[in-house]
Amino acid sequence: MYKTDNFKSIIDRYKVVFFDAFGVLKNYKGLLPGIENTFAYLQQQNKEYYIVTNDASRSPVQLAESYNTKGLLAITPDHIISSGMLTKEYLDLKVNDGIVAYLGTPDSAHYIDSSGLHTLPVSQIDASNIDKVNALVFLDDEGFNWFEDLNKAVNILRKRTIPAIVANTDHAYPLNKHDVSIAVGGLAHMIEKIVGKEFIRFGKPDSQMFMFAYDLLREKGAISKKDIVMVGDTLQTDILGGNKFGLDTVLVLSGNTQAIDAETRIIATGIVPTYICDSAVVEYGELGF
Amino acid sequence: MYKTDNFKSIIDRYKVVFFDAFGVLKNYKGLLPGIENTFAYLQQQNKEYYIVTNDASRSPVQLAESYNTKGLLAITPDHIISSGMLTKEYLDLKVNDGIVAYLGTPDSAHYIDSSGLHTLPVSQIDASNIDKVNALVFLDDEGFNWFEDLNKAVNILRKRTIPAIVANTDHAYPLNKHDVSIAVGGLAHMIEKIVGKEFIRFGKPDSQMFMFAYDLLREKGAISKKDIVMVGDTLQTDILGGNKFGLDTVLVLSGNTQAIDAETRIIATGIVPTYICDSAVVEYGELGF
Amino acid sequence: MYKTDNFKSIIDRYKVVFFDAFGVLKNYKGLLPGIENTFAYLQQQNKEYYIVTNDASRSPVQLAESYNTKGLLAITPDHIISSGMLTKEYLDLKVNDGIVAYLGTPDSAHYIDSSGLHTLPVSQIDASNIDKVNALVFLDDEGFNWFEDLNKAVNILRKRTIPAIVANTDHAYPLNKHDVSIAVGGLAHMIEKIVGKEFIRFGKPDSQMFMFAYDLLREKGAISKKDIVMVGDTLQTDILGGNKFGLDTVLVLSGNTQAIDAETRIIATGIVPTYICDSAVVEYGELGF
Amino acid sequence: MYKTDNFKSIIDRYKVVFFDAFGVLKNYKGLLPGIENTFAYLQQQNKEYYIVTNDASRSPVQLAESYNTKGLLAITPDHIISSGMLTKEYLDLKVNDGIVAYLGTPDSAHYIDSSGLHTLPVSQIDASNIDKVNALVFLDDEGFNWFEDLNKAVNILRKRTIPAIVANTDHAYPLNKHDVSIAVGGLAHMIEKIVGKEFIRFGKPDSQMFMFAYDLLREKGAISKKDIVMVGDTLQTDILGGNKFGLDTVLVLSGNTQAIDAETRIIATGIVPTYICDSAVVEYGELGF
Repeated sequence: MYKTDNFKSIIDRYKVVFFDAFGVLKNYKGLLPGIENTFAYLQQQNKEYYIVTNDASRSPVQLAESYNTKGLLAITPDHIISSGMLTKEYLDLKVNDGIVAYLGTPDSAHYIDSSGLHTLPVSQIDASNIDKVNALVFLDDEGFNWFEDLNKAVNILRKRTIPAIVANTDHAYPLNKHDVSIAVGGLAHMIEKIVGKEFIRFGKPDSQMFMFAYDLLREKGAISKKDIVMVGDTLQTDILGGNKFGLDTVLVLSGNTQAIDAETRIIATGIVPTYICDSAVVEYGELGF
Repeated sequence: MYKTDNFKSIIDRYKVVFFDAFGVLKNYKGLLPGIENTFAYLQQQNKEYYIVTNDASRSPVQLAESYNTKGLLAITPDHIISSGMLTKEYLDLKVNDGIVAYLGTPDSAHYIDSSGLHTLPVSQIDASNIDKVNALVFLDDEGFNWFEDLNKAVNILRKRTIPAIVANTDHAYPLNKHDVSIAVGGLAHMIEKIVGKEFIRFGKPDSQMFMFAYDLLREKGAISKKDIVMVGDTLQTDILGGNKFGLDTVLVLSGNTQAIDAETRIIATGIVPTYICDSAVVEYGELGF
Repeated sequence: MYKTDNFKSIIDRYKVVFFDAFGVLKNYKGLLPGIENTFAYLQQQNKEYYIVTNDASRSPVQLAESYNTKGLLAITPDHIISSGMLTKEYLDLKVNDGIVAYLGTPDSAHYIDSSGLHTLPVSQIDASNIDKVNALVFLDDEGFNWFEDLNKAVNILRKRTIPAIVANTDHAYPLNKHDVSIAVGGLAHMIEKIVGKEFIRFGKPDSQMFMFAYDLLREKGAISKKDIVMVGDTLQTDILGGNKFGLDTVLVLSGNTQAIDAETRIIATGIVPTYICDSAVVEYGELGF
Repeated sequence: MYKTDNFKSIIDRYKVVFFDAFGVLKNYKGLLPGIENTFAYLQQQNKEYYIVTNDASRSPVQLAESYNTKGLLAITPDHIISSGMLTKEYLDLKVNDGIVAYLGTPDSAHYIDSSGLHTLPVSQIDASNIDKVNALVFLDDEGFNWFEDLNKAVNILRKRTIPAIVANTDHAYPLNKHDVSIAVGGLAHMIEKIVGKEFIRFGKPDSQMFMFAYDLLREKGAISKKDIVMVGDTLQTDILGGNKFGLDTVLVLSGNTQAIDAETRIIATGIVPTYICDSAVVEYGELGF
């Protein structure tokens, strides 16, 4: 069904590695100990990599900085594909003028800002400017008053026939070892059900995330889907999405999926990775320095 | 398919009338003008009635008072069946001790309080008392901090294997002519999806609401479902629920369903009332005083 | 969370026992060995019982016969509550004339026949009689050509604004130790999604099934929900439905839920029985004869 | 919100046109009268086009032939992107050996056949070969016995942890002016719910369909998403999918969406095309020959 293997042996078989971020490279405590070896090995072996993440709370520059300040200097903005980038591309292509109302932090909105469009928090939409709102974007679960602004978002979408874009499809995310938080994807789903309209979602398992990274790779030279492996800790997003896009996949047991119930979940969901692996860490001894 | 008829003529054919509250007896502006005639006529004709409402925000006594202070004195607490009453009955029968954590106002919680059980807002649950929480109840969309307490509710339900009871199945409710508010049923649905557990829901269209009223009727004497008509403004709750319970039903056009799209919605949903009627108001001239 | 106990000890605490049928009294091999002792004990102790089953394929008389011919003589038609009975009650109360089109066997249709209504298999509906069709009922997964008649049912419901009644809410049922079959509830759900209308469903976990049995009990004398225990092998129907109706519940491990994963499933679903028990069999030695 | 415009004027603004097939180029009566002018105009203007269709019942060669025999010679296999092609690509990339069981006609299976894999109808899977089944593919609603083979598909998926691929996401399709047929996407959805696993779906509105066409375009030269317009008759597939991929979109009123309710549906769903147009037909007089 799937093979259990050592992470270094697995990536030796591919030219490119796509990584999920949370539960793979880092967790609520910080970077995974030893993960820097993995990137040292990739560099040594001249392998390409991308971080493919359902995160629209910050720009790629800020996301890269968050790794750098923790000591992982290998990660640069041009190696990060976020669902926020797809949102930005959508707005660039499809919304030509007016206001983009958003739920999220100023940081999250700053990134999607572009010439011609004006981003404004949902809290600042009122009778004077609602007619200029041409899109509503769900960026982050923080940065606004849930009671006031979720209710306001419902009523904006009832009054305006405009696209609603969900820049993070996750319904919840881990906060610490014991607790989770409701993610903006969960809030958006509630509002979608209430207003009865079809929202546009960006994020794994949707293929558009993988396509974005694949396109960047192809600009650098000939590549086949057979040359790429996707590494993630979540069956329903990383593995399902990678599989569907035609990539080989690695389920790592350092995050959402625990060793004890990996097999049960694979059988229950029918989502089968190509490999299972303890973590994405390459041991220092394996580096061969 | 259905008959369009005068409300007085309709209720002349039944011994008992079940009314939905919002959109039928009252709206965001207050009581429906002339609705007091309807209750005068029911009394004159010796017909029984119940108000069957998805409202767990207040006790039947408080709900009746809200009609009385607006001038509709005919409505007494013993004629009100609310989804809060079913919640209270559930807790009485099924939860014997410990804490019932709740999301809602103190008023909503006061009503479900009973001997043996201790109600506590979700905000007051912490490591010291979480092990005593034996049920979590969604009562009202007000009375708590959405960001903090919705996230807390998620984590209580992940840690405790306890029943989660939703005392109002509606996902939204009208606030004024132009706006709606997210109802506690919408918030509960979001949390149910995140924690992946089955919640217990009380409220129309579920039969248990109608059964509760029907049981009270039978205590007073022999009655058949053929003697009862359900009056409501919403196809998916009032009409679907009434139909399924075996009652004749009246769709009134004074609330959620407008005259202009009543037929379209009936065809689209396949939910067919026995009658359609402008409103539940009996004209003063029809009273025959 | 729940107590593990001996079945005889459990039923000693109640006046009335509600049983699910499949997985509790019988399975694909026939009656559960020793289940006759349970009914002998109930009779000895003067306890009342009902079989509450999502089965609309046959009448209560035929259902009782199927137990009798297997050697369980204690089960009589008046102790059986089936989802077919609720369907029959609905048609009696709500559909006054015309044709009731059905998917199922002639046996299943014979039972719901009544004065004034004419049942006709979907295969016999055509341009000459479609305008007289006043309800469409999903009774059984056998007795018709799936390709032809499921497609026909879709088109009848697109052309006629009539109630669609699903007399068995299960999506699948066990055929033998290794295989399941698609149940009529699964077929109905597919058609409901295609035509986009709201169907009426009868069957556990819906309260109306329990209410029907409870009403019969009350006709015989004073009874409280505290006096009744519901016994079943399926968390999502028997236990959820029993709990919601306010009954104590027993999960038996002789059917759908195996000992090895009972606790996991209870935690995953949040559906908690009052008791867990190997089976509903009272040992012969416990009878005290 | 959207512009109503003449089809020729619209396509004058783009370099490439993507067409949906059914409801746009043809309907149950055959080709849309005059549609050959559209392709004559595209050729005259040196514009590129692709037909992007949720159809896995035949190969691109057979699909092209079906247009050619009706008199539309302009359509060649290399201009057709079908959901069957994505299924074939998935199998090539992800399933290396063993049997691919399928529901559909021999024609539909023949196309996905490839070296290393062996396609076999679900009816021919039994105890002797089930362990070699490495994927199950839903290709077409015809070519098999619904009762026997849908039940068999359920049990294969319960026994084997393998990918289930749905090569046509539609739940129904128009058969003639008055009737629809259940499509294989509807059947697959029913089975997915019963087995509780995640199926892989190919077809609009999923981006992978558009990406496939976009990739072929880029092989021919530099192109931007701004240069492409997607033409379709269905909001939920053609327009939603085109919008999400970042394309401008044209809703034509010659198929699923009628002029009378186009605006209502756009407001209800929140899916807004860039343009609305009677049909994709360019009038002969507009050709300028």
